[in-house]
Amino acid sequence: MRIFDLKAGASTRRVRIFLAEKLLQIPIVEVDLAAGENLRPEFLSKNPMGRMPVLELDDGTFLSESVAICRYVEEELQPEPNLFGSAPRERAEIEMWNRRMEFGLMIPIMTGFEHLSPFWKGKRIQHGPVGEQARQVALERMAWLDDELSGREFIAGSRYTVADITAQCALVLGKNTGVPIDAKFSNLTRWFKEVSSRPTARA
Amino acid sequence: MRIFDLKAGASTRRVRIFLAEKLLQIPIVEVDLAAGENLRPEFLSKNPMGRMPVLELDDGTFLSESVAICRYVEEELQPEPNLFGSAPRERAEIEMWNRRMEFGLMIPIMTGFEHLSPFWKGKRIQHGPVGEQARQVALERMAWLDDELSGREFIAGSRYTVADITAQCALVLGKNTGVPIDAKFSNLTRWFKEVSSRPTARA
Repeated sequence: MRIFDLKAGASTRRVRIFLAEKLLQIPIVEVDLAAGENLRPEFLSKNPMGRMPVLELDDGTFLSESVAICRYVEEELQPEPNLFGSAPRERAEIEMWNRRMEFGLMIPIMTGFEHLSPFWKGKRIQHGPVGEQARQVALERMAWLDDELSGREFIAGSRYTVADITAQCALVLGKNTGVPIDAKFSNLTRWFKEVSSRPTARA
Repeated sequence: MRIFDLKAGASTRRVRIFLAEKLLQIPIVEVDLAAGENLRPEFLSKNPMGRMPVLELDDGTFLSESVAICRYVEEELQPEPNLFGSAPRERAEIEMWNRRMEFGLMIPIMTGFEHLSPFWKGKRIQHGPVGEQARQVALERMAWLDDELSGREFIAGSRYTVADITAQCALVLGKNTGVPIDAKFSNLTRWFKEVSSRPTARA
């Protein structure tokens, strides 16, 4: 088993943190994004979307999409510590929060990055106001999340779950791309400090 | 139990089809999007994201995010017919395909709609080239999916799953917003005709 990885990616970081929380070590193959390795036929045969991470299983088949990989790891390889929930109601709650963190936080931050960063110049169509609008959404979501976190310790409740991993990776990306957490969001700041101090945060 | 719904929504349609496949009937409350009902405090207390669908449970709590609702329905209310997979490997495969259909197909089609449709004029920043780029991505994904479907009957394998529901709702939206399936994509056309002819398709 091995993982095709991208050290700097937000999705790949989600899987690395998830595996570290499970105390699982899976050999890593770094894919050279700058050289376009992810768009070559050899990689596209592993994941036609041309994205990392990809998990290669021992039978030679491949699995992509971060959350699909994480769920497989929890259900097949290492159930503990539980990060997706146990009973159906809790599992649904965690999935809801994980998706809110993806669609409400990660995507606006990524959209801001794509439209405002020189990194994407010439690779994608960039339109500043679209990026600014996305950042504004990200900031509004942070304000809301700050309010939510006044009443509980973690994103989906009283314990650390996959929803925290998604949120922390989104906010690391935000920090690195011009949308850091405003210090006035004291609950969000407290939470971010806590999850960032976990030994797995730098996986 | 009841569902706060939006008849014309792509996400709400996903849940309605899912419930119909399960032969479940849950009372529906239509939310008046045009009147901004989804952004009023009463609705935001149910889902702070201001989006439909929302499932109200019998204990008075609420669950949002389509896929979280669908998974809860399968795990807690009605396991059959199975739409998320059984063994971990199959479940991961279906989740991977469901996410490819969300991020690779649904989001580009929605982005095209948001940037090119008069419906969104004045509500969001619109930039034609961003919309055209998204439509181009959607068309490329359709070409790829057409190729994938040359070798199997459904999106994630030999049977109908939640990934088919996501793909069909994305392509209904595409059909209604200027990105229909090109007839040259014969496998995709065959598949779309088949899933559209299911009794649940008009749920």
